[in-house]
Amino acid sequence: MEVLKELGKGVLRELREGKPPKLKIPSRGTSNIVYDEEHGYYVLGPRYEIRSASSMAQVKKFAQTLCVAEFCKELVSAGKFATLREMYYTAEGWEPGPFKDQDESDLLVEDLEAMLGLKREDLALMPEEDGAAVFGDLTIREGDVTINALKAGRGGYTIPPTIDEVEFVKCKAKRVIAVETMGMYHRLVQEEAWKKFDALIVGLKGQAARATRRFLKRANEELGLPVLLFTDGDPFGFHIAMVVISGSAKLAYVNHELAVPKAKFIGVTATDIVEYDLPTDKLREIDIARLKQLQKDPRYGSKFWQEEIKKMLELGKKAEQQAFAKYGLEYVVKEYLPAKLKEVEGA
Amino acid sequence: MEVLKELGKGVLRELREGKPPKLKIPSRGTSNIVYDEEHGYYVLGPRYEIRSASSMAQVKKFAQTLCVAEFCKELVSAGKFATLREMYYTAEGWEPGPFKDQDESDLLVEDLEAMLGLKREDLALMPEEDGAAVFGDLTIREGDVTINALKAGRGGYTIPPTIDEVEFVKCKAKRVIAVETMGMYHRLVQEEAWKKFDALIVGLKGQAARATRRFLKRANEELGLPVLLFTDGDPFGFHIAMVVISGSAKLAYVNHELAVPKAKFIGVTATDIVEYDLPTDKLREIDIARLKQLQKDPRYGSKFWQEEIKKMLELGKKAEQQAFAKYGLEYVVKEYLPAKLKEVEGA
Repeated sequence: MEVLKELGKGVLRELREGKPPKLKIPSRGTSNIVYDEEHGYYVLGPRYEIRSASSMAQVKKFAQTLCVAEFCKELVSAGKFATLREMYYTAEGWEPGPFKDQDESDLLVEDLEAMLGLKREDLALMPEEDGAAVFGDLTIREGDVTINALKAGRGGYTIPPTIDEVEFVKCKAKRVIAVETMGMYHRLVQEEAWKKFDALIVGLKGQAARATRRFLKRANEELGLPVLLFTDGDPFGFHIAMVVISGSAKLAYVNHELAVPKAKFIGVTATDIVEYDLPTDKLREIDIARLKQLQKDPRYGSKFWQEEIKKMLELGKKAEQQAFAKYGLEYVVKEYLPAKLKEVEGA
Repeated sequence: MEVLKELGKGVLRELREGKPPKLKIPSRGTSNIVYDEEHGYYVLGPRYEIRSASSMAQVKKFAQTLCVAEFCKELVSAGKFATLREMYYTAEGWEPGPFKDQDESDLLVEDLEAMLGLKREDLALMPEEDGAAVFGDLTIREGDVTINALKAGRGGYTIPPTIDEVEFVKCKAKRVIAVETMGMYHRLVQEEAWKKFDALIVGLKGQAARATRRFLKRANEELGLPVLLFTDGDPFGFHIAMVVISGSAKLAYVNHELAVPKAKFIGVTATDIVEYDLPTDKLREIDIARLKQLQKDPRYGSKFWQEEIKKMLELGKKAEQQAFAKYGLEYVVKEYLPAKLKEVEGA
């Protein structure tokens, strides 16, 4: 609320001084997205754009930006949340006129996020999608409801889009094991992996939602839990893990709030495919092209990744996390995960 | 377990009598799928196929079918569940040899379902995906855990793939309002629609998962709750509702366990688009083609559907459920839903 008020005051100040008000918006163009070696994720560079009320070309967008900010202020002061889609429709009634499409209104939200250094969730705009499922001994509070993630059912506690309003009350788990598929999530819940490994089991449901990434970051930083990522052994699985670890280039302006640089990959590697003699599928054209992209991606610069990607290309094969069922349903909990945990956490 | 044992005994009996054992499997070909006017969903017709151990062409498949049945029996007796994918990988070690691909093993599961008149979930095979989110005053029991769906967090209680093992303990809600998008789910939770309408709010997340459809059927039949379906005003929204109501042709062999013929559509219609003057998008080619398909689909035979589909084609426009935000975020709860409830439930 303070930040939004400051924005408004700045505009007013310029008007009172007889100057045309303007906004200074960090550029999100490709050339201004840089990989921050030290932090291990993409950030925005120093370039910015000026959006001025004195330019005929910019004045409508300037007004729309202020409308978005006002909409957010109303939400925050009412203690409510809206989706980007709802905001787009609400804008039908705004003075500068409706948006052509939702892309247009979404971009203004990104402008605000980058300009104010806040996530859209802080501006009371929530993602459409829910986050992951969590199962394990974590007690959280949402408003006046207290929930233990061992007692929310097999389906687990669902990370809400408003995860930043959730308070961590108590946690007995010692690590987070986040898995790509809900099939594996249910396997780990059924085999009581949460008990065996003192873990919170998180079912990512493919590419992790913003709320999930925020949850993992908070679990890592507030609760001090190591975050371990167990994905399929294919380029898409690798990237599900990497986006959690290093964030995406597209979200460079909020990666500092989402990336979990200390998270570790315990997914299926090319080496595992050979050593465990896993059932595989042939790499498709698209897998090969994707692996070649990853080879050049700075996030995959480490020796580990370079070797594993090369090996997978040579092998020409990929494997899913459920492939361990070849050795029985319990194998993944009895053999694979203990071996991986030992590897990344030491003996 | 009993049903699986009977299957095995039948095979043994034939062997003891010196006859080659065979299985009688209801045909799931298009020509054997018929629309059951009386029940209001697709069912299988009377045709079936014989799978015999005495045919060179069929003996491998015969053996594989028995392996699948045995795998299910082991799961049931161990009180465990597995995904279809896990079964496919487990089959790597079976005597008749591995499956070529998962389609092959999935088909055998469908054979068993059709043959035994059971859902795969009854055979301890669970869908990969979780079901919908439920928010409202329903108390359920899963094993030794009791959960109230008002106290599982904003994200709600997640319907697990193993929904048939869930016991309904107590329900104070008087109806179910199931919505297509999680955006709308969170809107209804936030505006306390569950309180205002004495409703369980269910977030379908697009096309309803099997577990969700089973939950809705049980809520309708065991708890006696009317089920109301609130979707987008477009052919895909219509069909999300219709699959809940009437099931799909593809699942004709289990529709009696999944379809909720008494569920009612309260989604956005072509009439609503005009009457509420909603923000719209133009129908795309694919929307028009789909609407024309629906016109000929027996499930859309009623006057209501025929008129609304015709009107939408004439209008050339569609609208999303979130479009009511044009009139403010609360509008959908204050105006639209009360009007619709009155319409379908009477004054």
